[in-house]
Amino acid sequence: MTKRLDQFAVGIDIGGTGIKFGLVNHRGDISHKNVALKTTDYEKVEDFVDALHDALKPAIDSVGFQKIRGIGVGAPNGNFYTGTIEYAPNLPWTGVLPLAKLMSDRFNLPCSLTNDANAAAVGEMMYGAARGMRDFIMITLGTGVGSGIVSNGQVIYGHDGFAGELGHTIIRPGGRKHRSTGSHGSLEAYASATGIMLTAQEMLEQTDKPSLLRNFKSEEIDSRIVYECAIQGDEIAQEVYRFTGQILGEALANFIMFSSPEAIILFGGVIKAGKLIINPTREHMEKNLLPIFQNKVKLIFSELKEADAAILGASALVWEMRDQ
Amino acid sequence: MTKRLDQFAVGIDIGGTGIKFGLVNHRGDISHKNVALKTTDYEKVEDFVDALHDALKPAIDSVGFQKIRGIGVGAPNGNFYTGTIEYAPNLPWTGVLPLAKLMSDRFNLPCSLTNDANAAAVGEMMYGAARGMRDFIMITLGTGVGSGIVSNGQVIYGHDGFAGELGHTIIRPGGRKHRSTGSHGSLEAYASATGIMLTAQEMLEQTDKPSLLRNFKSEEIDSRIVYECAIQGDEIAQEVYRFTGQILGEALANFIMFSSPEAIILFGGVIKAGKLIINPTREHMEKNLLPIFQNKVKLIFSELKEADAAILGASALVWEMRDQ
Repeated sequence: MTKRLDQFAVGIDIGGTGIKFGLVNHRGDISHKNVALKTTDYEKVEDFVDALHDALKPAIDSVGFQKIRGIGVGAPNGNFYTGTIEYAPNLPWTGVLPLAKLMSDRFNLPCSLTNDANAAAVGEMMYGAARGMRDFIMITLGTGVGSGIVSNGQVIYGHDGFAGELGHTIIRPGGRKHRSTGSHGSLEAYASATGIMLTAQEMLEQTDKPSLLRNFKSEEIDSRIVYECAIQGDEIAQEVYRFTGQILGEALANFIMFSSPEAIILFGGVIKAGKLIINPTREHMEKNLLPIFQNKVKLIFSELKEADAAILGASALVWEMRDQ
Repeated sequence: MTKRLDQFAVGIDIGGTGIKFGLVNHRGDISHKNVALKTTDYEKVEDFVDALHDALKPAIDSVGFQKIRGIGVGAPNGNFYTGTIEYAPNLPWTGVLPLAKLMSDRFNLPCSLTNDANAAAVGEMMYGAARGMRDFIMITLGTGVGSGIVSNGQVIYGHDGFAGELGHTIIRPGGRKHRSTGSHGSLEAYASATGIMLTAQEMLEQTDKPSLLRNFKSEEIDSRIVYECAIQGDEIAQEVYRFTGQILGEALANFIMFSSPEAIILFGGVIKAGKLIINPTREHMEKNLLPIFQNKVKLIFSELKEADAAILGASALVWEMRDQ
């Protein structure tokens, strides 16, 4: 792999509505960053690819087509092996979409695709907190809980490309029902922003203890409000984070006994709570580990800016391509 | 890798007391199989290695030293990366033992070492049910519960060589206490032969229902007796297996959402119960999977004879060596 900084990877993040892209060099500097196009504006995925080509062309032309090494795409339900997006509930196009092939044909560049959490892990390995690591787990704590697992320096995709759905592992059998999957007691049901909101609502109902949270209507309370009350010393709000950290810590202990990573890297909106979330997480993670694993796994925050991480992660797929 | 069947790997299984070894060709045929030496007869590990050399020499000489490609060792707490056995509670020698180096120096052959469950996984990939698979999980259900995980065709050892302790993941937080680790609700506390015995004892205490198991003293009941009562139609004994399968199935679902394997291969004494254990396991495994993983992971039994598996697994490490 050459490390020339005048080589670029196109990083594209496909979200439920908006598309972000940028050109990225080996060091992770982003240029020509743009938030353009809405997936909902295009009836057919082919039209979307055409529009994306038009939107990216000025950026590609300005650095020179020959300096672009390829395109990386992070997308919901993206399958690395097949280059397809499969039955993504948040996209307007249904079924199995051969996006990598459509992109590659339209742009005349190699294109690699994976889901957002795996892209985040590759981004962290290339530009962030996991540089130089060959074994780590990335956990994204946002509206949902995603994960990307790296072992022996490779993302674990599994036999079908769908490995790393740690948010859906069951941590509390028979516990809280997940609103969309219907499962009971999954990590995502507790450790996502939605989970934090639900925990706060439950705790407020279970006690008459005074709380700043009672100044809000139940349906108004979100993880941001819980955080703001917690830093003002509100006991219930702090207990919400302590409980969330306990569940997350127990889950992380199980993950560590699976792949024995050097580090677990946390990313996403929920980690804005800082010590409020990481201290109880670390405590319960260590407590649930076999001695052989204790006090040696780093629990750290992502080093990538949240606004840039999706583009960086997608672009990093390009440097991982075999022929680079 | 040459596939010449006149090449041999030495496979050595180091157990708590006995040592088994044999010479194995690429097809998994074992010759010169021997159960010799007791670890407890040797005060120093160096003396043990000398004695092992003397015991193996006739076998090696009879096929010719130049046809031996190397030595593979499966040992409790064996670390693949360092070639050391680290603080194995069941061996007479304490601390960190540089066994691979001692063996390699004494035999003048390359030596590779790992723990028993990882060796079993490599053996299954080389000679057994996982031939041709690049992503699978091996679960050994014996006195304890061990595991070996293969992703992208490689055993997952983790950053320190200790990955794959799935028996110690917590499946029932706050559940049954593990007799040696002290953890609560681990897979091993339920799905091992010991766990089956404890489940039977608990169920007999919780009800007055008649049961063939009541013909035995509580401390006499082991997994073999539970099995024999179950096949005679005893309801409590059958319920013990159903419950064990439920716990195991829930655990397997979590593991699948981690590494998305093509198959899960079960091995060890507990699987002698056949359908009694595999049917409830499969049911609860499928029930706890996201739809994207359902009905596509094979749940199968090992194809290696239990008596030979440890030697085969250890020998398979040799064919995995980089220079072969």
